[in-house]
Amino acid sequence: MDIYEAIKRRRDVRSTFKGDPIDEGTLAKILMAGHLAPSVGYSQPWNFILIRDVQTRKKILEETLRQREEFAQKLDDDRRKLFNTIKIEGILDTPINVVVTCDPSRFGPNVLGRHTMPETCAYSAVLAVGNIWLAARAEGVGIGWVSFMDKDRVKGILNIPPHVELVAYLCMGYVTNFPEIPELEERGWNRRLPLSELVFMERWGMSPEEDFRRRLDETKI
Amino acid sequence: MDIYEAIKRRRDVRSTFKGDPIDEGTLAKILMAGHLAPSVGYSQPWNFILIRDVQTRKKILEETLRQREEFAQKLDDDRRKLFNTIKIEGILDTPINVVVTCDPSRFGPNVLGRHTMPETCAYSAVLAVGNIWLAARAEGVGIGWVSFMDKDRVKGILNIPPHVELVAYLCMGYVTNFPEIPELEERGWNRRLPLSELVFMERWGMSPEEDFRRRLDETKI
Repeated sequence: MDIYEAIKRRRDVRSTFKGDPIDEGTLAKILMAGHLAPSVGYSQPWNFILIRDVQTRKKILEETLRQREEFAQKLDDDRRKLFNTIKIEGILDTPINVVVTCDPSRFGPNVLGRHTMPETCAYSAVLAVGNIWLAARAEGVGIGWVSFMDKDRVKGILNIPPHVELVAYLCMGYVTNFPEIPELEERGWNRRLPLSELVFMERWGMSPEEDFRRRLDETKI
Repeated sequence: MDIYEAIKRRRDVRSTFKGDPIDEGTLAKILMAGHLAPSVGYSQPWNFILIRDVQTRKKILEETLRQREEFAQKLDDDRRKLFNTIKIEGILDTPINVVVTCDPSRFGPNVLGRHTMPETCAYSAVLAVGNIWLAARAEGVGIGWVSFMDKDRVKGILNIPPHVELVAYLCMGYVTNFPEIPELEERGWNRRLPLSELVFMERWGMSPEEDFRRRLDETKI
């Protein structure tokens, strides 16, 4: 699949998962795409934990539902009503969940480029997630990133050592379809922002000239 | 370009930049790829600051060189000698630098999925960087991410407000070539890890079975 096509058609999938398994060859390709991501000082700080066991996933789902309820309490009535109709995870609807972590001790302590920005360790793992997401899209596999969780509890469930950071929790499976429009846009949770409002020239707050603004907003990929 | 091809041939470019400008149409496509990244609760928290001004870039380069020296002091003699031969930035070798930020106040304060993991705001901006990097590769444009900098100083130079986070500083330009092997691998700074050592089954530390281990390591994308 063309790179722009994958970027454009990738979705954060929550509602359209099917349960059928992903074969090992496809899974290996998707994970290899993650492993070829950029990393600070070439430190490759990621690990990938593949979770198929349903009991483990049920424990994590409980955690997620608790956090969902906590978030709902923060919303005003209208937003809460809308939120209550939105599906936030596919933990048990998918054949496999993948946890991506980062280990700051790898090739450490002097990782090139990290001393000024220690968060670049986690950022490297996020770049692996990005590659995984796009490769999965090309394979017809949908991914939903779940962040409704207390990371320390989930680390406990998965025996992740204290010094290793849990970066992402991904639900992964084939889908009936990839929605044309992101679910949260379609449901009216948020709107897509025009690119021209997000681009500044030379320093914060300086808008591009009219021509370039128009070009930014009209660009199709 | 095929998605796997872009993932495989993407490089963190430091040494092979050419100075010729990137036309606005190409730049707009690359930025749009960034803007179509996943974001927590569809919050699209990123901004993209395009820096062409040489005086601004010289100030940032000074900052980078200071941090480079500080890092060098932490290394033992052999590593320092090696490090001193490695180029870490292309701030003035490229026609344009792009700063990617994240703004936690956007669509806030109740961003869906962020209350348990506030760092997902920055992670969303990192996913935008990932898309930008791959789209640039497809356009023949190289990118080098520079993290040798005190973020607060650079934020000061660019007038970035205190509540906005500087996530990434990218040097972007056409290249003479994309090296076959990552520079830090070729120079012997670090080695590529086998994927099978990074994948665990069900929980931390549980290695995959022999067949799947072999498959992981032999997978070509």
